Amino acid sequence: MAGINQRTEALLRRLVRREAAGGIRKLLARTRPEDLAAAMEMLTWAEQRRLIGLIDDMDYAATVLANVSDEFARQFFENAEEGLVVELLERMEPDDATDIVENLPDHLRDRVLNQLESEDADVRDLLEWPSDSAGGIMSPLAFKMRQTATCGEAIASLQRQHEELEAVHYVYCVDGEERLVGVTSLRSLLTHAPDTPLVALMTREVIQVGPRTDQEEVARFVARYDLLAVPVVDRNGRILGIITVDDVLDVIEDEAAEDMMLMAGMSEGPSQGAFQQSLRRAGWLMATLVGGILMAEIIGIYEATLATVAVLAGFIPVIMGMGGNVGIQSATVAVRGLATGHVQLGGGFRFVFQEAQVGILLGLLFATLLGTYGGVRFGIEIGAAVAMSVCLSIAAASAIGGAIPVLLSRMGADPAIATGPFVTTSVDILAVLIYFNVARAMLGL
Amino acid sequence: MAGINQRTEALLRRLVRREAAGGIRKLLARTRPEDLAAAMEMLTWAEQRRLIGLIDDMDYAATVLANVSDEFARQFFENAEEGLVVELLERMEPDDATDIVENLPDHLRDRVLNQLESEDADVRDLLEWPSDSAGGIMSPLAFKMRQTATCGEAIASLQRQHEELEAVHYVYCVDGEERLVGVTSLRSLLTHAPDTPLVALMTREVIQVGPRTDQEEVARFVARYDLLAVPVVDRNGRILGIITVDDVLDVIEDEAAEDMMLMAGMSEGPSQGAFQQSLRRAGWLMATLVGGILMAEIIGIYEATLATVAVLAGFIPVIMGMGGNVGIQSATVAVRGLATGHVQLGGGFRFVFQEAQVGILLGLLFATLLGTYGGVRFGIEIGAAVAMSVCLSIAAASAIGGAIPVLLSRMGADPAIATGPFVTTSVDILAVLIYFNVARAMLGL
Repeated sequence: MAGINQRTEALLRRLVRREAAGGIRKLLARTRPEDLAAAMEMLTWAEQRRLIGLIDDMDYAATVLANVSDEFARQFFENAEEGLVVELLERMEPDDATDIVENLPDHLRDRVLNQLESEDADVRDLLEWPSDSAGGIMSPLAFKMRQTATCGEAIASLQRQHEELEAVHYVYCVDGEERLVGVTSLRSLLTHAPDTPLVALMTREVIQVGPRTDQEEVARFVARYDLLAVPVVDRNGRILGIITVDDVLDVIEDEAAEDMMLMAGMSEGPSQGAFQQSLRRAGWLMATLVGGILMAEIIGIYEATLATVAVLAGFIPVIMGMGGNVGIQSATVAVRGLATGHVQLGGGFRFVFQEAQVGILLGLLFATLLGTYGGVRFGIEIGAAVAMSVCLSIAAASAIGGAIPVLLSRMGADPAIATGPFVTTSVDILAVLIYFNVARAMLGL
Repeated sequence: MAGINQRTEALLRRLVRREAAGGIRKLLARTRPEDLAAAMEMLTWAEQRRLIGLIDDMDYAATVLANVSDEFARQFFENAEEGLVVELLERMEPDDATDIVENLPDHLRDRVLNQLESEDADVRDLLEWPSDSAGGIMSPLAFKMRQTATCGEAIASLQRQHEELEAVHYVYCVDGEERLVGVTSLRSLLTHAPDTPLVALMTREVIQVGPRTDQEEVARFVARYDLLAVPVVDRNGRILGIITVDDVLDVIEDEAAEDMMLMAGMSEGPSQGAFQQSLRRAGWLMATLVGGILMAEIIGIYEATLATVAVLAGFIPVIMGMGGNVGIQSATVAVRGLATGHVQLGGGFRFVFQEAQVGILLGLLFATLLGTYGGVRFGIEIGAAVAMSVCLSIAAASAIGGAIPVLLSRMGADPAIATGPFVTTSVDILAVLIYFNVARAMLGL
């Protein structure tokens, strides 16, 4: 019911192509900036830039640019005039502005930082922390009150500050040395008498993170405790900023995308343009190539066997394919389980054991099917050899696919890399070795 | 800094194994229920049940059970006494209780629903909607006020209702016929004079969803507009409930998991036990098997070629593997792009075109590498045939991998199914066909 609909998107595209400035302005007047940002994704760079140029309201333009993809934002700001960059950044929330400044080319970043007004010292502070840590995604605008202040005073302070603080989720209570000692909700300010001191109603055990806490862990806390925001505190217990749940939503989406890309063997990085896209993917494919050449060498060892029973070559793909796919399935279950906490490192052994059981069941099932086909088509001996090979390959693939992510995770690596060409290639090699050795033994070659 | 740490988890496990009731109770006293729910994932069913049995505080137990995995919750409630089930459900938020009731076996569900007190008529209402729609994930507890009411009246009402309403994110303003006409924040109640009518400060354009809106779309709205909650309204504009951002976090995590599982060719369903796990995975593997048998038949056609130049068999895996992995990469980029809106159906052609370009670049790169290996190892003719084949396979795989998800999505299917055995198998068959035909033509066989 909300959102820009398909028809509006098509209209926008037509208007931009026709350079119908009047029509575009009329359309923009009834479009939310967030919707415009989403609709812009399907325009070309040139069209996007032309569209932004038609926006007169700088606050509207800033909101649009805070919501477009990182790639477009970088493209846009790199090519924009310095004055415009500064003006737009000043209209953004500090955490959004920081994301953009981070991606600017070095020379432009320094110049822009110097021009940002003193109130935007925030942006400079935020740049200190790694971009995937709590410090890198926090906003410096937390609503703090002394614990000795009363509810009435907190409400009065909120009324005074309402221009500065965009959204207030909680009231953070600090002691005389600015250390975080408690938290309470806006609602509790309303449900207590105005002269109640905050210390009397605050919750003392505040869920908090440090500035270097990984953003994925921050997301896990916010999700687990159903928080609207979590404070980031330094070693001395002072609040550096807050991370709000909308930022956590972005983190969860980004991390899911990253896991998916890693699983398909792609590294992160700029993705505009075919050449850069190719670079991102070439690394893992190189591993596949090396694995493949190794496999060619291994199959070469069995050249004599193949020359004798050429029909054996036909089963190489299905035995590799079954093993590879089972391995990917087990690895995916493991990666997802580790990410959500359903597979614990401590219980890793139990998980690998279950995957092995699954592998044996699947192995028996597909051994029967493939063996029947092989036996009917090429004789009972071929059928038996193929059945035995596929059963062993699947069982091994399942155990390996389940074990590698758990092992990687124990070693402190990201388990998602396990399901790409890494698991597939090692399972493939194993499957081919099993196949030829079983075939030679059973066929007496 | 928050959260149950590894050492506490290990301690908990030891205490449960030793059935040290006293120690467990002491540990529970300083553990948040959400942390306990997470820590429980690594215990066996029996241990989990024993642990729940040791919790005396029913509210604590209800919170733990609202936070454990769906599987454990189902296992637990299926085997629990009816009286206990009802008591625990009554202590949960209606949306959490609904999730659990939904998963109960039919006979138990009806008996439990009849015993839930009248105030939990809510649960019965929520069960009407599909579990992955807005109606299925909403909570019926929205804070509503007449638009003619004043800020002071709203605050007074909030103070009266504070037992019932767990978390209040927004004040929803309704007209005389209970239709949603505006929304405002708790904070604006504080920053306006108590006699200001809500109608004077409310925002009239309320982002809202219908009860049948897909949960994924709800999540997209909440993320796009940075909302803390979104109201669910019926055809007549009356509020049925609200969906809060913490529920949206769960939706995003579930949907990412679902996409990942689909991409690995696994269907959803109960996942406890090796037999059920095997069933979930067998469907897609069946497709791999059929594809593999087809491939065996195709390779069989070229048996004479293979018998003449047995070394050709050695390159089957690497040519299939390169094609398959490139296809998966393109499909993953497409699936992710479609999910986040970065690849638009309207711009689908442009995306497939770019994937084809990426494929050609990667094809040229790996043709050079594999051709050099083949040439040095087995002579220039083999090298040339292999190089040409890998180049064509990669280019085709990239275009196909990019196109299939876009096509599926246009047909209204979930594009994630494209990257499993489906893309791999079709790309594999194509790669083998390309390989043998190129080899025969170039080697003059």
